[in-house]
Amino acid sequence: MTPEEFRRRGHAVIDWIADYQKRIESFPVLSRSKPGELRAALPEEPPETGEDFDAVMRDLDELILPGITHWQSPNFFAYFPANASGPSILGELISAGLGVQGMLWATSPACTELETHVLDWLVGMLGLPDKFKSSGDGGGVIQDTASSATLCALLAARERATGFRSDEKGCDGTLVAYASTQAHSSIEKAVRIAGLGSRNLRLIEVDKKYSMRPDLLVSRIVADRAAELVPCFVCANVGTTSSLAVDPVPEIGRICREEGIWLHVDAAMAGTAALCPEYRFINEGVELADSYCFNPHKWMFTNFDCDCFYVADRSSLIRTLSILPEYLRNRPTESGAVIDYRDWHIPLGRRFRALKLWMVIRHYGVEGLRHHVRAHVGLAQELADRIEKAEHFELAVRPLLNLVCFRHKGGDDLNMRLMEELNTDGRIYITHTKLDGRITLRFSIGQTNTQRRHVEDAWRLIEETAGRLEKD
Amino acid sequence: MTPEEFRRRGHAVIDWIADYQKRIESFPVLSRSKPGELRAALPEEPPETGEDFDAVMRDLDELILPGITHWQSPNFFAYFPANASGPSILGELISAGLGVQGMLWATSPACTELETHVLDWLVGMLGLPDKFKSSGDGGGVIQDTASSATLCALLAARERATGFRSDEKGCDGTLVAYASTQAHSSIEKAVRIAGLGSRNLRLIEVDKKYSMRPDLLVSRIVADRAAELVPCFVCANVGTTSSLAVDPVPEIGRICREEGIWLHVDAAMAGTAALCPEYRFINEGVELADSYCFNPHKWMFTNFDCDCFYVADRSSLIRTLSILPEYLRNRPTESGAVIDYRDWHIPLGRRFRALKLWMVIRHYGVEGLRHHVRAHVGLAQELADRIEKAEHFELAVRPLLNLVCFRHKGGDDLNMRLMEELNTDGRIYITHTKLDGRITLRFSIGQTNTQRRHVEDAWRLIEETAGRLEKD
Repeated sequence: MTPEEFRRRGHAVIDWIADYQKRIESFPVLSRSKPGELRAALPEEPPETGEDFDAVMRDLDELILPGITHWQSPNFFAYFPANASGPSILGELISAGLGVQGMLWATSPACTELETHVLDWLVGMLGLPDKFKSSGDGGGVIQDTASSATLCALLAARERATGFRSDEKGCDGTLVAYASTQAHSSIEKAVRIAGLGSRNLRLIEVDKKYSMRPDLLVSRIVADRAAELVPCFVCANVGTTSSLAVDPVPEIGRICREEGIWLHVDAAMAGTAALCPEYRFINEGVELADSYCFNPHKWMFTNFDCDCFYVADRSSLIRTLSILPEYLRNRPTESGAVIDYRDWHIPLGRRFRALKLWMVIRHYGVEGLRHHVRAHVGLAQELADRIEKAEHFELAVRPLLNLVCFRHKGGDDLNMRLMEELNTDGRIYITHTKLDGRITLRFSIGQTNTQRRHVEDAWRLIEETAGRLEKD
Repeated sequence: MTPEEFRRRGHAVIDWIADYQKRIESFPVLSRSKPGELRAALPEEPPETGEDFDAVMRDLDELILPGITHWQSPNFFAYFPANASGPSILGELISAGLGVQGMLWATSPACTELETHVLDWLVGMLGLPDKFKSSGDGGGVIQDTASSATLCALLAARERATGFRSDEKGCDGTLVAYASTQAHSSIEKAVRIAGLGSRNLRLIEVDKKYSMRPDLLVSRIVADRAAELVPCFVCANVGTTSSLAVDPVPEIGRICREEGIWLHVDAAMAGTAALCPEYRFINEGVELADSYCFNPHKWMFTNFDCDCFYVADRSSLIRTLSILPEYLRNRPTESGAVIDYRDWHIPLGRRFRALKLWMVIRHYGVEGLRHHVRAHVGLAQELADRIEKAEHFELAVRPLLNLVCFRHKGGDDLNMRLMEELNTDGRIYITHTKLDGRITLRFSIGQTNTQRRHVEDAWRLIEETAGRLEKD
């Protein structure tokens, strides 16, 4: 494809996306595609000779779009958001156009330096402790997801706890990790990957607000030490997936300090709220953490993937993950004056993801980002007020920020039927969890273009649908 | 950013990329940026209010571009290529525009089904064994990089070898992995991450062609078993990073079958060559592998990141990595009729990367892809012929495909000075390795737009520069 053909096709693709954005509310949010439906429509064999690009664009409309669940719809209230924005999409486009691979500083200095710079900016923007800035012993790096960030944190913790001997000799089944019963599945995944074994993950019970009980954490650590095990890692959640519960980081942090245990704080979705001074209470205790992550790709208008992972002491992380073969040796690396981000995560290669983050921050400005975050939190609080007043519904917990957990009073079956009815209808998409063993509906507000009318229409639809089901 | 503003800005960005493609040869391939130079030019604080997009685009030209090492230049001969193409960039753009997150089939059926379909296509296109197709017990998945693919293969191997007990009880220091001394650094990284410990990685000596010696592999396995260790994983390279050496996969495969050891074949760069029947010899023995990977983001015109990872028995992989919390439960998953790719890799979330791969295959057609691959291999062979005839140069090894390993006969220092002089000059970019302890220059031909004139000009420049240095 010549530059001129790229220009022509590129304009058409941009138009297609702009039009998609305009008509996005016309699609059912959750795809109605049946298993195997798309595959059945695709040719069994790839084309032997090149096809016209128009044919591809036609298939995009006719075959691909019906199989899309519209995460960028303002009526997407499922899971957590993966919100995007114009400047972010364009940042991703420029990154694809430049096509650089930033494994080493030398393989594109701007890819590394913009990343370090923007991640330092974010420390200030979110009011995180200065120790996470690259100017001291710490620093930040973009990972694909919080799952990978958690794994890297656990690996560094594992090595710190064993004097870097696990890396050399392998694990021996004695290391123990801790999180609450509400912790994300990625914690157990990391514990299994890193060779600790899932039975060495302790899921600590929570209080009535679904926050980890520090007293039980302490007693578990004591019991493990008594059994000659080696506590090495605690993951505290700032905003759990089920209910956006916040673990008591100050207490957990003090325990970890006393016990010499690595504390990782996972604020994947909620972390963005700290842009606003009035929500910055979620950072309480983070000064005691060894590592921290949040995902601009969830609630900061930066398209997936983009997780920001910070460590207070980068040397543990780098020592854990660094290997320098001859073919990667180069003068800037040997000078020690540069960061090579390949040593900060699992993959060797890396995209220029800082570009989209930089473009989002510049386009919105800090105040613009705050404006959207406040609007989402405001809408969630309004919805919670309505639910509190609704005769047949109840809140599972008062929402801290932008996730509303509620249920119909008619029991688990009715709630599941309600959710399925709503998602089949297609005007909105919500998901569920279990809290205290009971089905709970989750209404997560964070898509970039969600406005009051979307939430109001959604609530009307929920009440109407529930009314119909109650009569069944 | 409204859809109309996105349209206007998007057209400008597309124009910028088309213009970048036209002027790419005017930049020094290796960035001349000094450590800290970009950061010093960036404002210390993020903007409080939103900035005009034109200012961002201006900074892109004035601040970012000088810090770019131009991987998409036809004069980029360093490392391995990370080649991109128009249809791939547009695929990435559409993926960013749709902004879906394909962790589950339900969260965008098209994201999963197109991936399965295209990965099945590739099995046929590359002449890989049918067992890697999703129609049987196997299947393919897109990973970010071969590093992650190798880690997943190792994890599945670890669990198969221990009856899925390492996942539960943790590693115990007895598992052993094998690769050649030429293996990529990602193997050791994976061995460390997975809790085996680097001292349990055996690097087997190679023959004169830098291929693993199967006799030494066998004797090492026997010795390890005698020491009551548990051999669990062999990584065979099809195209090493240093010299594109191919390990004897048929022999290694037979050994692994007899010993019950998981065989992973890493064909990250070279795998693409199998598109052409005449280079398909590189797949010899792959029918004995448990897993295989190659990177369309290296040599198949698909921009980074895109690694295709195949397993013969997907159940081992899924069992190793699967955890199903309540908040991810959904009817299609429970029906068993769909693939949820979240269980096939480390991260939970995932981008719609199949789109760019699909668009590349449709734009070029299989024959079009072969045409470019053949052209690159042809250029490498021509260059090797010239080097064989050049008085002051020698080949380190006759190139199998598109990587030319050579050196000036003047010794290590001269070769390093030659490389640095060339890279500072900026017209081309090459890198080095060590083979048999001697500095070897690597000339890797794989950028999408590299033509004969680029290679001829590069060789002229190399000879001229060497001539000057010989006189110093």
